[in-house]
Amino acid sequence: MTRTYDTVSFLSDYGHTDEFVGVVTSVIRGIAPGAVVIDLTHDISAHDIRAGALALARAVPYVASGVVLAVVDPGVGTARRAVAVEVAGGEGVFVGPDNGLLAAAVALTGGAERVVALTNPEYQLVAPGPTFAGRDVFAPAAAHLCAGVDLSELGEAVDPVGLLPGMVPIARDENGGIAAEVLWIDRYGNVQLNVDGDEAARLGTTLRIRLGEGGRVVRVVPTYADVGPGDVGVVIDSHGLLSLVCDRASAAEALGLRPGDAVALGAAFDVESA
Amino acid sequence: MTRTYDTVSFLSDYGHTDEFVGVVTSVIRGIAPGAVVIDLTHDISAHDIRAGALALARAVPYVASGVVLAVVDPGVGTARRAVAVEVAGGEGVFVGPDNGLLAAAVALTGGAERVVALTNPEYQLVAPGPTFAGRDVFAPAAAHLCAGVDLSELGEAVDPVGLLPGMVPIARDENGGIAAEVLWIDRYGNVQLNVDGDEAARLGTTLRIRLGEGGRVVRVVPTYADVGPGDVGVVIDSHGLLSLVCDRASAAEALGLRPGDAVALGAAFDVESA
Amino acid sequence: MTRTYDTVSFLSDYGHTDEFVGVVTSVIRGIAPGAVVIDLTHDISAHDIRAGALALARAVPYVASGVVLAVVDPGVGTARRAVAVEVAGGEGVFVGPDNGLLAAAVALTGGAERVVALTNPEYQLVAPGPTFAGRDVFAPAAAHLCAGVDLSELGEAVDPVGLLPGMVPIARDENGGIAAEVLWIDRYGNVQLNVDGDEAARLGTTLRIRLGEGGRVVRVVPTYADVGPGDVGVVIDSHGLLSLVCDRASAAEALGLRPGDAVALGAAFDVESA
Repeated sequence: MTRTYDTVSFLSDYGHTDEFVGVVTSVIRGIAPGAVVIDLTHDISAHDIRAGALALARAVPYVASGVVLAVVDPGVGTARRAVAVEVAGGEGVFVGPDNGLLAAAVALTGGAERVVALTNPEYQLVAPGPTFAGRDVFAPAAAHLCAGVDLSELGEAVDPVGLLPGMVPIARDENGGIAAEVLWIDRYGNVQLNVDGDEAARLGTTLRIRLGEGGRVVRVVPTYADVGPGDVGVVIDSHGLLSLVCDRASAAEALGLRPGDAVALGAAFDVESA
Repeated sequence: MTRTYDTVSFLSDYGHTDEFVGVVTSVIRGIAPGAVVIDLTHDISAHDIRAGALALARAVPYVASGVVLAVVDPGVGTARRAVAVEVAGGEGVFVGPDNGLLAAAVALTGGAERVVALTNPEYQLVAPGPTFAGRDVFAPAAAHLCAGVDLSELGEAVDPVGLLPGMVPIARDENGGIAAEVLWIDRYGNVQLNVDGDEAARLGTTLRIRLGEGGRVVRVVPTYADVGPGDVGVVIDSHGLLSLVCDRASAAEALGLRPGDAVALGAAFDVESA
Repeated sequence: MTRTYDTVSFLSDYGHTDEFVGVVTSVIRGIAPGAVVIDLTHDISAHDIRAGALALARAVPYVASGVVLAVVDPGVGTARRAVAVEVAGGEGVFVGPDNGLLAAAVALTGGAERVVALTNPEYQLVAPGPTFAGRDVFAPAAAHLCAGVDLSELGEAVDPVGLLPGMVPIARDENGGIAAEVLWIDRYGNVQLNVDGDEAARLGTTLRIRLGEGGRVVRVVPTYADVGPGDVGVVIDSHGLLSLVCDRASAAEALGLRPGDAVALGAAFDVESA
């Protein structure tokens, strides 16, 4: 008995300047007219697999069951595999390049159960060049899954163990504090760290943060509006992680931070006792 | 007898860089699979309630009956209320923060008839932090309304009179002319003023505009293409308001104007008789 | 027997900053609730008919059958006609301004078969000003076609021969090489030329390109990843045309190229033998 799907949740680094997203959506519409395409985001920085993987992982707990189509694919056309990864007893299938982009999201849903490489040309578009796999390989695969084609028909089986792992940075204890990293800076300039709120609780509600040479003391507050004007605070954000924030201003700008930057966290009494 | 809705018209300041819009849409899809989400715009400047309220007011005469979800919410997580506002005998429900964002649009549809505060946790997502009410509070409310939940179940009734009013600037007569304000500068650089075409008719078809120190004389013309190259003209725009425009160029740039700036309008013979 | 359509593929220069796209989509939803709107792209540069025409032509082979709504319309409100153009035995209808925007895409689908000027006010919205034809003229026409109104009811018949032609630049042979032009620079900085891969094959797999004063030798490679770090290569792109590309970097930036720029291609042995 073959499952069908009616939602394709779509993330890419295609941007909106060109017609890439529209063309991929049109291809899906042609093959699976009943499927609804939900755009997660298409403004991942060009070629930024790490940022795409993190955005996908943040979104996936909220994504409707069905197909997740993710394309950040600087190695398009090379030997990197195109894959479809079934998870959660078939409740979802991830379709995209096997370059680490899918790894964190797949792990969050319980791990890969069945994997195929998208090698069956019957479910691909014939194209003059190999540079637009989103249109020619990934979108048709996603759409055919919606139309009732079984995963196994899309190509040869692949051992899930062989999928490229993602690289989600793990915070580590250091001198009684936490050596953290900036995961994400959002539109508002909020700075998400790879530190769980629970994990940081032992440091208290006033933290010392060190960035490069500088440092400052920040308070953990419940909401943006609790941060004083011109000040920086810390909230437990909507994913349960620590975020450095300002009230109606960009903490990233105030602190000069970018994704991947190191941030050291300590208990603030270290400062006072110094 | 409970009404159901099948359209959610969605406006926010979430931008497209992050996955916020996609996650909110996914939450709606999960709860109300039959609802269609129409994106009005998500590029309202971050935290700009005034700009969001004006865009919503411009859009609302054209919006399909159903739920209107609007989120520009710098006070997220504070005591500002989250509300659902029923209008037009139940033809529409606005869902968003009670911070003035909804006010002008609600007024345009005839005013609030039934209002509830979104306090019932049964129709909200459990979240680690309170910073993403769009995902955890507003989207579920909008979706449950589509799925047939009655407004009254979403939370306690609120007196419509207590809703925060909007602040739409009103033009005023001044020295025989009109003291106006820039409401909106659109993508093309057209400068919409808070002056009704009918109201300005008495000034004639050649106007004197004063901005700060400077001034110039402009003609009222039917279309952009009737403005001479390098010149600035006035059209009655698609909302019936005066707009300062250029032909295939930005009037905002030519005049150095921004939203909220003051512009004084007079009859041009004032200049000639001076 | 009247045809109905269930897809509107929508391209414009409206951008995402304003609510234009949302309002047009809302108007369609109000008239034809069953129609699905697919956004091809809305970030065509303001007023850039050439860029819009090229994007539409690239997309149209992949667009679902139905209505194609295209609006890049600097002459809105002037005597330029608003038209609906039926193609492919009624499988598709293009709706937009008769300013060259539709020409290349219409030609790709086999040419205009039936054309009407959108002059019937019964299928338009009443508006205070003529500056937003997308909302008031084009969207209602597209939606009424979806709802089963016959093309002929939208306005008076127009001779297809009278449609404004597009201006797609044709590459030409020159001194044994090819005088080409930059058609498109995409988000990644790839530079598409108006040269068919087959056409360029006679020059071999190592090409000499000349841009203004400078020149360089580039290799034709199968994928982006085959270009060396810091180098520029040529691929046959996803439309079968030559594109100048870098690996994970912008060839447009590396070469200082913009749409419309001239690029001369020659066989590389010319250089060696010089």
